[in-house]
This record gives sequence, C-alpha cells and structure tokens, in this order.
Amino acid sequence: MGKVAVVMGSASDLPVAEKAVAVLREYEVPVEVRVLSAHRCPDEAREFAASARESGFSCLIAAAGMAAHLAGALAANCTLPVIGIPCGGGAFSGMDALLATVQMPSGIPVATVAVDGGKNAALLAVQILAVTDEALARKLGEARQREKAAVLAKDQELMERFQG
Amino acid sequence: MGKVAVVMGSASDLPVAEKAVAVLREYEVPVEVRVLSAHRCPDEAREFAASARESGFSCLIAAAGMAAHLAGALAANCTLPVIGIPCGGGAFSGMDALLATVQMPSGIPVATVAVDGGKNAALLAVQILAVTDEALARKLGEARQREKAAVLAKDQELMERFQG
Amino acid sequence: MGKVAVVMGSASDLPVAEKAVAVLREYEVPVEVRVLSAHRCPDEAREFAASARESGFSCLIAAAGMAAHLAGALAANCTLPVIGIPCGGGAFSGMDALLATVQMPSGIPVATVAVDGGKNAALLAVQILAVTDEALARKLGEARQREKAAVLAKDQELMERFQG
Amino acid sequence: MGKVAVVMGSASDLPVAEKAVAVLREYEVPVEVRVLSAHRCPDEAREFAASARESGFSCLIAAAGMAAHLAGALAANCTLPVIGIPCGGGAFSGMDALLATVQMPSGIPVATVAVDGGKNAALLAVQILAVTDEALARKLGEARQREKAAVLAKDQELMERFQG
Amino acid sequence: MGKVAVVMGSASDLPVAEKAVAVLREYEVPVEVRVLSAHRCPDEAREFAASARESGFSCLIAAAGMAAHLAGALAANCTLPVIGIPCGGGAFSGMDALLATVQMPSGIPVATVAVDGGKNAALLAVQILAVTDEALARKLGEARQREKAAVLAKDQELMERFQG
Amino acid sequence: MGKVAVVMGSASDLPVAEKAVAVLREYEVPVEVRVLSAHRCPDEAREFAASARESGFSCLIAAAGMAAHLAGALAANCTLPVIGIPCGGGAFSGMDALLATVQMPSGIPVATVAVDGGKNAALLAVQILAVTDEALARKLGEARQREKAAVLAKDQELMERFQG
Amino acid sequence: MGKVAVVMGSASDLPVAEKAVAVLREYEVPVEVRVLSAHRCPDEAREFAASARESGFSCLIAAAGMAAHLAGALAANCTLPVIGIPCGGGAFSGMDALLATVQMPSGIPVATVAVDGGKNAALLAVQILAVTDEALARKLGEARQREKAAVLAKDQELMERFQG
Amino acid sequence: MGKVAVVMGSASDLPVAEKAVAVLREYEVPVEVRVLSAHRCPDEAREFAASARESGFSCLIAAAGMAAHLAGALAANCTLPVIGIPCGGGAFSGMDALLATVQMPSGIPVATVAVDGGKNAALLAVQILAVTDEALARKLGEARQREKAAVLAKDQELMERFQG
Repeated sequence: MGKVAVVMGSASDLPVAEKAVAVLREYEVPVEVRVLSAHRCPDEAREFAASARESGFSCLIAAAGMAAHLAGALAANCTLPVIGIPCGGGAFSGMDALLATVQMPSGIPVATVAVDGGKNAALLAVQILAVTDEALARKLGEARQREKAAVLAKDQELMERFQG
Repeated sequence: MGKVAVVMGSASDLPVAEKAVAVLREYEVPVEVRVLSAHRCPDEAREFAASARESGFSCLIAAAGMAAHLAGALAANCTLPVIGIPCGGGAFSGMDALLATVQMPSGIPVATVAVDGGKNAALLAVQILAVTDEALARKLGEARQREKAAVLAKDQELMERFQG
Repeated sequence: MGKVAVVMGSASDLPVAEKAVAVLREYEVPVEVRVLSAHRCPDEAREFAASARESGFSCLIAAAGMAAHLAGALAANCTLPVIGIPCGGGAFSGMDALLATVQMPSGIPVATVAVDGGKNAALLAVQILAVTDEALARKLGEARQREKAAVLAKDQELMERFQG
Repeated sequence: MGKVAVVMGSASDLPVAEKAVAVLREYEVPVEVRVLSAHRCPDEAREFAASARESGFSCLIAAAGMAAHLAGALAANCTLPVIGIPCGGGAFSGMDALLATVQMPSGIPVATVAVDGGKNAALLAVQILAVTDEALARKLGEARQREKAAVLAKDQELMERFQG
Repeated sequence: MGKVAVVMGSASDLPVAEKAVAVLREYEVPVEVRVLSAHRCPDEAREFAASARESGFSCLIAAAGMAAHLAGALAANCTLPVIGIPCGGGAFSGMDALLATVQMPSGIPVATVAVDGGKNAALLAVQILAVTDEALARKLGEARQREKAAVLAKDQELMERFQG
Repeated sequence: MGKVAVVMGSASDLPVAEKAVAVLREYEVPVEVRVLSAHRCPDEAREFAASARESGFSCLIAAAGMAAHLAGALAANCTLPVIGIPCGGGAFSGMDALLATVQMPSGIPVATVAVDGGKNAALLAVQILAVTDEALARKLGEARQREKAAVLAKDQELMERFQG
Repeated sequence: MGKVAVVMGSASDLPVAEKAVAVLREYEVPVEVRVLSAHRCPDEAREFAASARESGFSCLIAAAGMAAHLAGALAANCTLPVIGIPCGGGAFSGMDALLATVQMPSGIPVATVAVDGGKNAALLAVQILAVTDEALARKLGEARQREKAAVLAKDQELMERFQG
Repeated sequence: MGKVAVVMGSASDLPVAEKAVAVLREYEVPVEVRVLSAHRCPDEAREFAASARESGFSCLIAAAGMAAHLAGALAANCTLPVIGIPCGGGAFSGMDALLATVQMPSGIPVATVAVDGGKNAALLAVQILAVTDEALARKLGEARQREKAAVLAKDQELMERFQG
C-alpha cells in the first residue's frame, strides 16, 4: 500500500495535521509527517513533491494557512493527487487559505477540503487508496456504519428525552 | 480501468461537465455522463452513488451550483472519492456553491476544485486512477511537459516582442 | 393539530434546536425532536421526510451548520413546509450554512431564518399552523402584545433614566 | 382557500414577482398583486399587513432589494407567515437584500428564499396552504413527479449522447 | 437648540447608544433616549418619527443590529436627518446591520456611520446642529484641536521612547 | 441658505455626482461642483475643506470609489457635515469604497449613503439644511407625498392588471 | 539602473502587464517581460527569481489571478522587492487573487497593489529605484505635478460647467 | 543608509508597529517612530510626508485600521515607497483596512502587506534599501537561510516524532 504524506506549511499547523495522521493510522496507512514551507524552504518542498511518486507515496496532504500556497506548490511538482487543507485562524478565518488552495488554474488540481478539515483530508486519501484496495474499501464502509449507528443512537436518546 | 462518472445537478451545468468529459476522453478513461439532482430525483442520485463501486466506477465527479448539495449527497452514499465542482453564475458567482461543496462535515469528504473547474476535476480523477496505473501516470507527466513547453514558448515570444 | 419536527444534523446543534422546542411547547404544539444527518444517515433522513406527512407532521424544522444540506435534503423528499436554521460557529460564522440552506434551486423551497434562529424557526412553524387555527393565531397576537409591552416598558425606563 | 399576496417594494421587482404569480395561478391559489414600499408608503404597507388576516389572506410574499425591509415590515404588523424574496441586482448582487431579509430579530420571523427566488416563494406559500388542503398537497406531489421525470429524461438523453 | 433622539432597536444596544448620549451631553445638546423597535412596536416607532419635527427634534439617531431596519423605518416616516448606527456582534459582526442600514432606496436616505460608531453618530448630529449654530461649530473646532494635541503628544512620546 | 458642495474624487464619478446636483437644483439649493482628489491634489482638497464653512458652505458631499478617502479627507479638515457616496464599479463593486468611507475612526464622522447613492446624498444635504429652514422642510414633505402617490398609482395599476 | 521584470502567470494577464510596461518605459527603466507560471513551469520561475539579483534586476513585478501564487513563489526565491498585482476576472473578481497575494506569511513579503493595478505596480517599482536615483525621483515628482494639473483643469472645467 | 519611518494612525496600533521596529533594528536600519493620524492631524501627516525625502527617509511604513487612510495620505504627499499595514481587529477583522489600503487609484501606489503584517512591512523596507546595498542584501539572504534551517529542523523533529 502506498504511503501518504501529511505536509504542514508551518509547525503551527500541527493540530490540524494530527487529525489527519490519527485517521490514517486508524486505517493502517503508512504515513510520513513533514514540515515543508512553500516559502521558507521552496527547494525542499519542490524536491519532496518531484520525487514523491518514486519514494512510494500515493497521495499528498498539505495543510497551510493565509496565502496557502503549499498544496499548489506540491501539485505543481508532481502528478499524484494532492489534498489541500486550508487552515483557519488569522484575520480572515481561513477564507484566504480556502481561496488560495481551491482556486487553482487549469492543469494543476488541488483536492480541497473544509477549513481545518484534517480528518476529511485523511479520509479522502484513504478513499483514493481504496479505489484499488478492497480491504480498505470495506473498512471505510464499516466506519460509515459505525458513524451512522452513533447518529441513530443519539437520535434515539434525544427523541426520548424530549418525549418525556 | 475503473469508470468515472460526470454527474450534473442540472442540464444547465453541461458546459462545465463537458470540460471534464473532454479531459477524461483525452486520457481514454471510460466515462458516464449523468444528470441527477440531489433535490429533484434524490432517490436516483442516492441509488446511483450507493451502487457506484459495484457498477465499476472508481471516482465520481459532481457539478452543481447555488446550494450545491449534489457532491455531498453522492459522498454520503458511497465511499468512492467524490470530486465536487462548484458551478458559478447566479447571484453570488459560485461562492454559495463553493461553500456548500467544500465545507462538508467530518466523515464525508468532498474533493473540491475551483469554481467551474471542469478540467481540473477530470485531471484529479485521472490522478486518482494513476495512483495504481503507471501508463496513466506517464501520460499525466507528459501532459505537464507539454503545458510547460507551451508556457515557455509564450515566454519566449513575449520576451522577444517586448525587447524589440 | 399537526406535529412539528425539530431535526438536527448533529447533536452539537442541540442548543439551537432547544430554543425551537421551547417555543413550540409554549404554544402547546406537539413536537418531535430528531437527530438525522443528511450525510451520516441519509436513508433515515430521507425516509423520515418521505413519510412525514403521513406520520402527522405539518411542518419540519431543520438545524444544521457548515455545508448545511439537511433542510434541503428533507425538502427534496416531502412537500411539507421545511424551515431551515443555518447554524453558526465554524470558520465562516454560519455564512456557509446560510448560503447552503437558502440558495435552493427552483422547485424545492426551504424557508430560511436567521443564523442560529431557533426561536424564529419555531414561531414560523406556529404561524404556519395558525393559518387555519384561530386559537393559535390569537395566541401569536397575544405574544406580540406582550413583546411590545416589554419593549415599551424598557423604553419608559430608559427614557426616564436618561432624563434625570 | 386563503388568498396569497405578492407584494413588491417597487414596480422594478415585477419580473421576480411575476414568477411567483405564475406558480400560484398554476395551483389555482387566489392571488393579489401589490406594490407597497416599506419606505415610500409605510402607512399603506402597515395597514395592508395589519388587516391581512381579516382580509382573507393566508400568507404574504414580499419581494424587495437592497436594504430590503419590506418582508420585515409586513411581518412586524401581522402574524401570518411572511415569505421574503431578496431581489438581486445592485452593487452587492442581492447579498444586502438577503441579509436584510433573513437576519430578523427574535420574535418576528421571515421565511426567506433564494435571491430572486420568485418561484420557490410561491411554492412555499402553496406548501403552507397544503398543510391542511389535501388536494393541494396532492398537486404538489404530482408536480414533483413531473419535475423528476423531466430530470430523468434529460439524464437519459445526455447519458446516451455521451455514450455514442 | 433642537433636541436629538437616540433610539435603540433593543435595550441590548444600550452600550452603543450610551456613547452617543455622552457626546451629546458634552456638547450640551438636549437628548432623549428611546427604545423603539421597528419590528416589536412598529406603530410607536412610526408615530415617534412622524411627530419628531413637531416635538422639537432636529435629528434622530438610530442604533440597531442584524437586519437593522430601525433607521430606515424612522427615515420613512419623517424628513429630519436620520443617522444610522449598525450594531455589531452576531454571526456577521455587523455586516448585516451595515448593509441593512446604508443600502437605502432612492428617496429615503439614512446617514450611516461605522459599525458600533456611537460617538461619531453623535458628532454628526452636533455637526448638523452646528450648521446654523456658531457656538456649537466653535466647540467642534476646539474639540478637534484637543484631539489633535492628544495625538501629537502621543507622537512626541513614542518618537522619544523609540529614539533612546 | 448655505451652499452645498458636490465633490468628486475623479471626473469619472460625474454620473453619480450629477444625480446629486439634479436633486439640489430641484430644491433650489446653491451648489458648487468640484473635482478634488484626496490623492492627486491633496493640498487643494484640504484647503477647500478647511475654508468651506467660511466660504458659505453648509454641507459637503463627496463621491469617490475604490480606496475612497475623499469624504474622510474632507471630514478631517472641517467640522461641517460631510456626506460620503461610495462609488461602485471596479473589482469589488463598491464594497471597497463603502468600507473606506463608512468605517471612519472616532472623532471624524462621515455620513455614508448607499453605493452610487447620488440622489440620497443630496436629499440628506437638503434634510440637513431643512433642520432650520421650514420652507425646505415643507418641500421635502411634499416630495414624499408625490413619491408615495406614484407608488400607490403603480400599486393600483398592477393590482388591477393581475386581477383581470 | 537596475532592470525591472514584469512577470505574468499566464499570457492572458498581458493586458495588466502591458500597463506596467508602459509606465516603466515612460520612466526609461529597462524592463524584461516574462511569462512564468508558478504552477506550470515552477522550476523556471524559481530559477528566474533565484538568479534575478545577479542578472541585474532591482525589482520584480508579478501579475497573476485566482489562487495567485506567482508573486509569493518569486519572493520565496529571492530577496529583491517583489510587487504583486492580483488579476481580476474569474468567479470572485480578484478577491481570491488579492488574498493569495497579500496574505503572505512572516518572512516573505509581497508588496501588493490594487486588483489589476498594473500602472501602480510599475510606479512602485520606479519609486523603489528612485530611493537612490535623484533624477528618477525628480521625474516622479514632475509626473505628480502633471497629474495634479490635470485634475485641477478638470475641476475648473466642471466647476464652470455647473455654474452656468 | 536612508532612514525608515514607522508611522501609526493611532497609538493603539503600537503592537503592530513594534514588530516592524524590531526587524528594522535587527538590520541596523535607522528608524523613526511616529503617531500621525490622517484624520486627527492631517496637516502634520502631510508635512511629514512632503518633507520625508529631504529629511533623509528612504521609505515610509504606515499602520492603520478600519477606513485606513494613513498609507494613502502619506503616499499622496511624497514619491517615496510607502508600505501599508492594514491593522486587524474591529468589526471586519481588517478587511476594511485591507481594502482601504490596497485599492489605491492609479498614480498613487501603496505597497500593501498582510493584515497586521508588521514584520513583513519592515522586511520589505529592508529589501528596498538592499536594492543598492549589498551588505544588507547579504544579511537578508542569511536570514532566509536561518529561517529555512529552522523549518528543516522542525521538519526533522516532526518526521521522527511521528515515525516512532
């Protein structure tokens, strides 16, 4: 199974990145965690992306805030799927990061998830791996069933509480 | 190779969907084009998504505008990667569609691309297939080289024009 | 008198839903409280809506945040009036939920109230029931008189305080 | 069956209002069309709303743009359901009208639909009347079936066109 | 000298209103403080505005939040200058109140100041009175001199602190 | 009667300024039209404002777009009421001009009207003059009556057209 | 005198770039025009920036739209002043490009000008060169005088036209 | 070496200004700190700017919030590069200040940095001085190397932590 990289633009994005890592570990997907800034170490970021497929990665996750160029910079240097997490906080609560991540020009897509959406970024990576991995696909389906059961339990609980 | 579905919320989204179809055909990816509204035929949309993996799809692309629920509705009913294209136009130029597509709750990711980003949605689908398909990965790399060459030719042309 | 359902997309929306429940109880409208996610249990949400009229509901209230699809998903599956409450919080303070709730396509209306407007959602439901229920209409009128009196008392108090 | 009023803030809102009138006529709901500005003839607007229930109205629809106070002004003077249509155009494409219509204070709800959503405003009015009118409810259900059939026909057509 | 009214849409707007009152008192302008909701007591609001000129008012200040209709409702019922203060807080930090206050239709102006701008609303009222009141104009000029002196003192202080 | 100045930041703002001039002439208010840029001729703008009261002006109207500093710059140099018209057009349709005009710091108010609101700016100026000019106040009241009559005529016309 | 580069992210940004080139030529500043995409030819963009100081450039101007990473990518690879022009057009009229250009992280500044502000970008470059070039500084001062004279001529013309 | 001025619109902007001062001192650039309000002491602000080049300044930094006119007012009165820092806080979190700073009209550029971007404003000033100062350019390059090393150390640390 291919590795997934969780790359942060800055160590301050760690709380968002950790949510992604936790999901990937839950699915037993090999993960590598990196701090690579599109602006402070552009060469290292570029080299990482350019060699990512050869290094055995299947998918890259990039978490960055403000003028969030990281996902786009990785995507510009490889043809693996790149998932972008716009990090919130800051003056514009992540609207700057969302637009800087999602509004990519034709030719260089970034698969963007919700602001601070670390968990969904990882699930999307797992879904991508699961396209050709039935066991993983089955696990995803089971997790959906568990989530559904949790909602329905809550539904039952609240329905009863307000019936009394 | 798995099929990719290009689903529109309304036939009026066809111009955006066609950009996706063109790219998928260029990469010789089998494609199925559908019009399935999350609101006008929710059962058909749900059933399509729920059986998509079994039907041989690897990835779903959903193009919708305004309160764009289509991508999320498909994603809620399958665990394949779902790529959402927020369609522009309308009072808010696609900001409504972007937020309704990208701000998904934890557990149900949608891989969102730029407003009206039909071409990038398809490229992302190809990248997902190329994770385990070397020939496709090579084609993606070659397309990047061609795009780069086109930019550099333009660079040369303009550099000279303004030098004169 | 028909029942009103107060449906949450997630148990975390309970504080908003409770404001609605309190108003409905004040008007002695039978109420059922549910947690039904458009994304985590789409089948249950759909079935609930599809059978709501037969189950004796007159009106559905749906509270959800972010890419708030719940109200639209219920509205897509029944022809009862569906009232949507966009829940705030999150990166965009409810702007995402507002647009995802109000910008519905032609054919499937959602009656949208203010962000976190649990009280007004319930009042709107009571107004709908009161179209053909004179006693309820009278109660609504009386409540307006009480609210008016409260404002005028406050007016008197502040006018005097600042006159001194 | 109660009448529905379609009130415009200005005769320039007529194109939006006409979409509502067309739907109401399709459902054979008695309709009265008015031009009543919350700002230019506030007394007439107030009196209209204050006597609307007695005059046989079941529901009021208000279409207005910019600092769209009309729906709120009607709602402040009666306890019938008031449906607000924010009209687009202008510098902010209807964002001003949307916020001025939907963000009502506690106690005075306005059921807000999409920008320029004349058709959905009328459908919502019909849904309100249909709460206690089975024939109308049946008609609404039939219309949904027709819309669904139209989408599915389009689906069939496009699926085939792109298969060839 | 004409009186100035400081009207709140709700007693919760008092902190903003008090800033206005303080300035008016500083200029010895007679002030009346009111709580009059455009939605909860529309008749009283209307009557207050309609008789304001006769009651000796020269100018009305209206502070309100969310779908802030108060200033517009007063302006619709009198031809005195009406100054609107959009109150902040709430989901959209006052953007809703700003647009609902400033985007008035042709014919009914509202003189809008900054979000929560109680002090400036009062100064604007004083400036209006000072058009024909030389003593007041002189006081305004003196206050400007004092503010300028305060800035220049701060300038001196910081210039020196950072020179050391 | 004091003069009113209509100042533009650029001759391209003339269409908006002309709407103001037309209203002022209708009310027979002496008007002076100027082009004075806060950025391109700051000294002339400052001197104009600084001497405006002595020159017989009662009120200044400033129309400017983008980072619209003109109203603020005039307000900083005099204590007459300054009315700001944010001009639309440009990338942000006047949102930049609105915020740059209305969000003035404490001490220096600008009475802001709607984007491109030339007519209302002039009416506000007339209202300010009318505080102490009964004839002008009467004219304003008469104009309101005429506007009201126009709306009611339109109301009658449309009510009948749709009754037929 | 150092050269200034005018770099576009795409040849479609040429109209904006040409405004910059025209100004630079007016000031007889040597200019080089390039098309270098941060996403389509990242290596060439990086190498251009990394060697720009040695190649005799004093300042780089970068024009790009949407998720406009070009200015940031150049700034990440050199320590010359980089001026960013957010290009408008597209779904969000340049708000995406503005935020992606201006909201740079600490350590890597981009000097951002208005949306489509090709002329001002070039003037800023000239101002930077003029810090140590008195002749250029004098030219800038003279241009200001000419612009001022043009405004004052327009002022005179309109003042007279409206006096008649 | 030319001096750099760090000008605040209000002493409350000191925390942002101090970040700029710290960077300038680190680079041993002579700095002068001022409080000069475009609105409260416009003459002093103008005179400061008008004589800045003669006084030995090379570059001006202006920090201001809300309708942030300071940078534009300084830029209107001199031809030195003016760097604008939009200060955050307030109802719109700095969006008002950003637009009021960056959207300058043609002819009067302001080099705008991120909201509250004190550090980057100073670095941009140093980059401007470094255009003709090789020692400073070298220092800037060395600082970049240190920042890069810090990111790479963090990268190493997190890569290892998550490998364990």
